[in-house]
Amino acid sequence: MPFRQTHLLGIEGLHPAEITTLLDLADQYAERMRRGLPAGDALEGLTQINLFFEPSTRTQASFELAGRRLGAEVMTMAASSTSLRKGETLIDTALTLNAMRPDLLVVRHAMSGAVALLAQKVTNCAVLNAGDGRHEHPTQALLDALTIRRAKGRLHRLSIAICGDIAHSRVARSNILLLQRMENRIRLVAPPTLMPAGIAEMGCEVYHDMEEGLRGADVVMMLRLQRERMEGAHVPSEREYFHRYGLDAAKLAHAAPDAIVMHPGPMNRGVEIDGAIADDVTRSVIQTQVEMGVAVRMAAMDLLARNLRAARGRAAMGEIADLFG
Amino acid sequence: MPFRQTHLLGIEGLHPAEITTLLDLADQYAERMRRGLPAGDALEGLTQINLFFEPSTRTQASFELAGRRLGAEVMTMAASSTSLRKGETLIDTALTLNAMRPDLLVVRHAMSGAVALLAQKVTNCAVLNAGDGRHEHPTQALLDALTIRRAKGRLHRLSIAICGDIAHSRVARSNILLLQRMENRIRLVAPPTLMPAGIAEMGCEVYHDMEEGLRGADVVMMLRLQRERMEGAHVPSEREYFHRYGLDAAKLAHAAPDAIVMHPGPMNRGVEIDGAIADDVTRSVIQTQVEMGVAVRMAAMDLLARNLRAARGRAAMGEIADLFG
Amino acid sequence: MPFRQTHLLGIEGLHPAEITTLLDLADQYAERMRRGLPAGDALEGLTQINLFFEPSTRTQASFELAGRRLGAEVMTMAASSTSLRKGETLIDTALTLNAMRPDLLVVRHAMSGAVALLAQKVTNCAVLNAGDGRHEHPTQALLDALTIRRAKGRLHRLSIAICGDIAHSRVARSNILLLQRMENRIRLVAPPTLMPAGIAEMGCEVYHDMEEGLRGADVVMMLRLQRERMEGAHVPSEREYFHRYGLDAAKLAHAAPDAIVMHPGPMNRGVEIDGAIADDVTRSVIQTQVEMGVAVRMAAMDLLARNLRAARGRAAMGEIADLFG
Repeated sequence: MPFRQTHLLGIEGLHPAEITTLLDLADQYAERMRRGLPAGDALEGLTQINLFFEPSTRTQASFELAGRRLGAEVMTMAASSTSLRKGETLIDTALTLNAMRPDLLVVRHAMSGAVALLAQKVTNCAVLNAGDGRHEHPTQALLDALTIRRAKGRLHRLSIAICGDIAHSRVARSNILLLQRMENRIRLVAPPTLMPAGIAEMGCEVYHDMEEGLRGADVVMMLRLQRERMEGAHVPSEREYFHRYGLDAAKLAHAAPDAIVMHPGPMNRGVEIDGAIADDVTRSVIQTQVEMGVAVRMAAMDLLARNLRAARGRAAMGEIADLFG
Repeated sequence: MPFRQTHLLGIEGLHPAEITTLLDLADQYAERMRRGLPAGDALEGLTQINLFFEPSTRTQASFELAGRRLGAEVMTMAASSTSLRKGETLIDTALTLNAMRPDLLVVRHAMSGAVALLAQKVTNCAVLNAGDGRHEHPTQALLDALTIRRAKGRLHRLSIAICGDIAHSRVARSNILLLQRMENRIRLVAPPTLMPAGIAEMGCEVYHDMEEGLRGADVVMMLRLQRERMEGAHVPSEREYFHRYGLDAAKLAHAAPDAIVMHPGPMNRGVEIDGAIADDVTRSVIQTQVEMGVAVRMAAMDLLARNLRAARGRAAMGEIADLFG
Repeated sequence: MPFRQTHLLGIEGLHPAEITTLLDLADQYAERMRRGLPAGDALEGLTQINLFFEPSTRTQASFELAGRRLGAEVMTMAASSTSLRKGETLIDTALTLNAMRPDLLVVRHAMSGAVALLAQKVTNCAVLNAGDGRHEHPTQALLDALTIRRAKGRLHRLSIAICGDIAHSRVARSNILLLQRMENRIRLVAPPTLMPAGIAEMGCEVYHDMEEGLRGADVVMMLRLQRERMEGAHVPSEREYFHRYGLDAAKLAHAAPDAIVMHPGPMNRGVEIDGAIADDVTRSVIQTQVEMGVAVRMAAMDLLARNLRAARGRAAMGEIADLFG
């Protein structure tokens, strides 16, 4: 099934077959990079603007490298240097950048729904959500899926434990959507205060005890404790949190013997994960996640650019037909 | 008439025929971008450094895209990451960058005259003023001119109202210089505190009442209320300002029926302009201004690069002649 | 002798013949740039990431231009936009970037030894030290060496005075290592509080009086007064410092008649150096230092990339041999 999207705003709108199409292409890009082969020129002649209203190392760098490796002109705009300081609205900033005729617009914003709103306003340009509030972070879920598929040989009928600060995590949300769509069993493990209300209705199993939650899991996906998003709520001490919910060898022993360990980064070592587990290359695929991140973003931008070019071609044909109509 | 400039420091030094030459070339670049055609490689092999001592979204992004689309290597340096924090002088920073042998140096600085000073110090490099204090912002005036010319079919004998915070605006100053040079009638509309002293001697008509000032205007150019430049002065409340000088449908009704509305951005919606007017595509050409901004900067850098290459060619010929002399 | 290094972490590990190899190549790049010739494509297809945990204008810009002029994809990450704010460790940041498969990683860090530590953790990637704490700044010493060699016609048996804040200076440390290795005579001139303990054992002559220290010197290398590194210590007033240790015409008269004046920048005019001396093109080679900086970094990255490609070739051959083994 072809990838039919105009934008990549979330996992929500993706058909499972579109996910597979994207992951297959990303797999090819990952292989080319591993072998040191040129990645091709799928984005040659296109302009990519990265608009980050929240700072980020890895996501921004990953999108920037992905675009450049495929030949795009990439321009990254940090929020601190934008006109937002001068009181301009999000939409005006977006329209301004849109008027400069970018082909790809990669946006991160602290407000859930901001990226989708922006996608409605721009024209002749594909928008990619690089994380919006607590809503979605689709390329993160896709890179996690590709990492799992490469490590476990499949992306269905796996038991996947997602552990930690689920309430504040767009990473968790996009992963749940994607992994359920691919028919996996999702186990959510978190203290009650970090578990979103009504999550059980999403069809996930809910655990407040780490050892129970990890039992037999094929994949243990740890989340970052988002202290910066926890203003006002009861915040556990780091020591207390690590004791109960931090991943260490003892807790990991309850998962399947060949379980892999994931983390989206940046890690709080000694808070949600023991440094020794993070560094254990027989279990941890954390570096692979970063590597797949570039490949997944290459694939996503490649597929969106194909659809963009096809739409432009149809528009041009329409104009010609009108002339002779 | 050829474009004879070595630098682009202001509208002040430009002959009307040079302005026309530049706008004609920008028009061609704008058309190529609209049709999705490659822009060419006028800056191939050249290095462009953007040195922004004041932050900016649109101008910096516009210069960066313009350079890249013509094949330049573009490096943007934000003030916050410069050595100025360590006490280095403007001139030393400029000389340092000049020693790295850039071909084009795009500079924005808070001090009027800083860019011209810097242009005297560098060698073998074209300097473009991206805004210096309250002095000039020539590429803004040129993009405004191109926008007007495309919308109205000509750039002379128009009645153009420039409204708002004229006293603090380099945009107003460059526009007045350019539009007078092209034989238009300029009407300045502002409260007395935002009107620069002695402006009437520049040959503009001065109005303190918006409806009178807009009467019959072909072009209504709104300015941003520069609150950040207004320390110490009497600052009107936003509500009061909008009531008297903000552009809304009622005030715009006094302009010509086909008057266009312009704003250099970033806009304060509800302060100097009603959001509904800004978004009304039958009147507002604000997005076109941004689009023309990239095209005008492409043309400016292309023309300066031609002159730079010609000067280098003459210097090389001179050296050869000396050898055989 | 070939350049055998995998990384460029300091002058410490370099053989004098490797230094000469690197300077010879840099000389060629400098000539090509002076003549406006293309620099070649030694880094074509490679990715360079600049990771600056301390801000910098000239070093960052110089590495960025050097990489781009040789065809690399260059991505610069400022510390302020990194995950370090979120509590990630240096090593995790490095591993994350490493997983994105850069070929060259240029790192500046406030902690001595940080860059070497990081080089141990990354794989399949050449690391360049762009300054680590008070430890080393090897490309600065190499560009100083090239500047001296071009100005004096040789890089040995010169009398070189290094003056000023030696105690806090990685520039001084790398220069002493390099210039001693090339058999020059080093004279260190500083007030006792800015002279590191035990420096005489490094084989340098130590002076606390500027006129004595400069006597007959072929090269006068001034250092920046690093006020930002001097917390807690006795800081002399600028006027007092300039009087005793600032380079002016009277003090320079004690050096050799054809002595050259150097400064790594950014300069504190009127503190460690008189502006008139800095600007006197018959003595000052400060702009040449900046120019040689780009050339030296081109050469360093070119040589490291050759070794990286050779190592990858050997690894690939090993894999093929294993297949048929």
